[in-house]
Amino acid sequence: MKIIVQKYGGTSVGSIEKIQRVADRIITNKEKGYHMVVIVSAMGDFTDELVSLAKQIDPNPSGREYDALLATGESISSSLLAMMLTSKGHDAISLTGWQAGVYTEDTPNKAKILDVKPDRIQGELTDNKIVIVNGFQGINSDDDITTIGRGGSDTSAVAIAAALKAECCEIYTDVDGVYTTNPSLVKEAKKHNFIDYDEMLELASLGAQVLHPRAVEGAKAYGLKLVVRSSYNFNEGTIVREVSDMEIKNPVTGIAYDENTSKIAIKGLPDKPGIAGDLFTELAVASINVDMIVQSNQTDDHNDIAFTMPRDEYKTAIELTEAFSKKVGAKGVTSKENVSKVSIVGVGMVSSPGVAAKMFSILGTNKINIDLITTSEIKISCIIDTEETDKTVKLLHSGFNLDK
Amino acid sequence: MKIIVQKYGGTSVGSIEKIQRVADRIITNKEKGYHMVVIVSAMGDFTDELVSLAKQIDPNPSGREYDALLATGESISSSLLAMMLTSKGHDAISLTGWQAGVYTEDTPNKAKILDVKPDRIQGELTDNKIVIVNGFQGINSDDDITTIGRGGSDTSAVAIAAALKAECCEIYTDVDGVYTTNPSLVKEAKKHNFIDYDEMLELASLGAQVLHPRAVEGAKAYGLKLVVRSSYNFNEGTIVREVSDMEIKNPVTGIAYDENTSKIAIKGLPDKPGIAGDLFTELAVASINVDMIVQSNQTDDHNDIAFTMPRDEYKTAIELTEAFSKKVGAKGVTSKENVSKVSIVGVGMVSSPGVAAKMFSILGTNKINIDLITTSEIKISCIIDTEETDKTVKLLHSGFNLDK
Repeated sequence: MKIIVQKYGGTSVGSIEKIQRVADRIITNKEKGYHMVVIVSAMGDFTDELVSLAKQIDPNPSGREYDALLATGESISSSLLAMMLTSKGHDAISLTGWQAGVYTEDTPNKAKILDVKPDRIQGELTDNKIVIVNGFQGINSDDDITTIGRGGSDTSAVAIAAALKAECCEIYTDVDGVYTTNPSLVKEAKKHNFIDYDEMLELASLGAQVLHPRAVEGAKAYGLKLVVRSSYNFNEGTIVREVSDMEIKNPVTGIAYDENTSKIAIKGLPDKPGIAGDLFTELAVASINVDMIVQSNQTDDHNDIAFTMPRDEYKTAIELTEAFSKKVGAKGVTSKENVSKVSIVGVGMVSSPGVAAKMFSILGTNKINIDLITTSEIKISCIIDTEETDKTVKLLHSGFNLDK
Repeated sequence: MKIIVQKYGGTSVGSIEKIQRVADRIITNKEKGYHMVVIVSAMGDFTDELVSLAKQIDPNPSGREYDALLATGESISSSLLAMMLTSKGHDAISLTGWQAGVYTEDTPNKAKILDVKPDRIQGELTDNKIVIVNGFQGINSDDDITTIGRGGSDTSAVAIAAALKAECCEIYTDVDGVYTTNPSLVKEAKKHNFIDYDEMLELASLGAQVLHPRAVEGAKAYGLKLVVRSSYNFNEGTIVREVSDMEIKNPVTGIAYDENTSKIAIKGLPDKPGIAGDLFTELAVASINVDMIVQSNQTDDHNDIAFTMPRDEYKTAIELTEAFSKKVGAKGVTSKENVSKVSIVGVGMVSSPGVAAKMFSILGTNKINIDLITTSEIKISCIIDTEETDKTVKLLHSGFNLDK
């Protein structure tokens, strides 16, 4: 019998009424003849409540105990869902991470999944039970409970689906699927019926609420079909899978953007080996998450380096950079606090020359100034003024025919 | 190094502030040079909140899932307490029931503890850690989480203390110890410095809030010293242990009472074999908890049977008994909805003749009518009108010199 793995996030199981709706959806699949394995997150904001309790005790609580604490949230939602299925006449059983055979690294809080030994899950499926598994958690080699990072239930679902050789892994969320861009900004945005794993990874800024990047990587590694769909309706959703060249109709499949970015540039940095490394080490020690880095060689003995970071880290970053500039004798620091990163993404870009030129031409024609550019094989990102974001996204969306 | 096991109930760990006070008390003992093992219940009324969620889904939820759900409460309080101890500079670790090696029967909800394998606890103690263990829970032979019944954290504490051959097991609660009777009714009531295991069991109606009867039985079986004391002060509390004849100064050590009792009597029940069994089977099927049963042979071919039950089960019980009386052709049913059970308890009664006579004489002299009497080796219980309860308890308390 074929296995379907489904994952429901915290909002989908946030109340008894919602758990009932999830149960009905599971039963529909079960009655079609599938073995069902369901991964759940904690109810609503229960995990946040636990975090708040812990932080009242210690801003940096013991990692092992923090994991033991947070893992309780998924135990509550999974046993309630199993009760609901049982009360509707379907045999169901909830399993914790360790009961389900999810083995992780020893490190607490962000332990990677090392192995899934699905013997118990398979045994319960053979007994014709619906199996509910706590997402977000596992067990390490010391028999201690670990968690695999916020949003990690997606990763649990993919790892379990891969171990079970499931037909597919359906990720239920509060949106219908993956769109060409944010549909609340561009009303012509279209939902993708399918999308490539790599595109999904690059669309992280659109997809962050939808799908955890580690889950996408895992699915790609195992060739597992992922489906992103809404738990509020029965629309088809978006299938994430390998997309062949033959299927590519448009080199660009999505426009992603991030409005909470700041940019800093340091001018005339002396061209000494390791000097850029020193700057970024200082920023890393201060927990600044540097995103784009662009270095341009202006003269023989001086460099200009520009980089971006999340806007709430701008103040710390600019102070550090100015101090660093004085220390090493650079010519000075310039910055813009309010910039946005706008990206076009598509696996077809590799084989379609002129995509970058078209992007710059669309922006240039419309007098939108580009501050920085970075490119990867399947993505081109530009830094622009934040106030130009909406206009830029709309222009690119129609310019690359994404509304057709 | 010597081991002390402490158990803190839900009210003692009901808030972050209270968890802090518990941590300070544990540290005081640790700094005196003891190995500390601490059993905790769930915070405040968290277990009740989980019960309410489950009952919204199903009034009779799946037993296995109910256990998996309820066991989360202790995980939360134990990991918070471990964090608190760590943040105060003491190495601490929380263990679930299965991590602590608490093995139970397979039956959910009220699984008896079969064995405690304390290897992991001992290992953590050797590493000089304070070990916090989730009370109320264990694991069965299917690797499923079980719970050992409400109030079962006392039993967990005793089982773990016995397995570790601890010096003693301290049960922290919101009263100072075990009193000769309820001190809020009789202001002359005295706290016992020590009390025998069997007396503690018979004083269950006084001690129910204080100590779970199964925990007392367990402590008696292992000869483990139990200490009942308050988590709100540093008073000595009451030691529950074997009391030798030499130590007995007063044949009566306590007056227990229960004001929520009702009595039913069925008159002229035909003297057929099994007829009483039929009546009590019908009552048991209707979940009536019959307490005292007194049968008196009135004539050769008829019996009178009287019995008591909790008052909130009276209505169901009287309907059933009246129907039964008609069915079997008894002479009729009489009842009193508002009666109390007042008991005198003491291990010294065995070797002190005249205790019962003295009790009846005190009641008779004061014109208190006795409806029913039952006796055991160390207890005599009388059923009286509820409105006479306070007066009766006070008379017996002073009559047996308990205020001296």
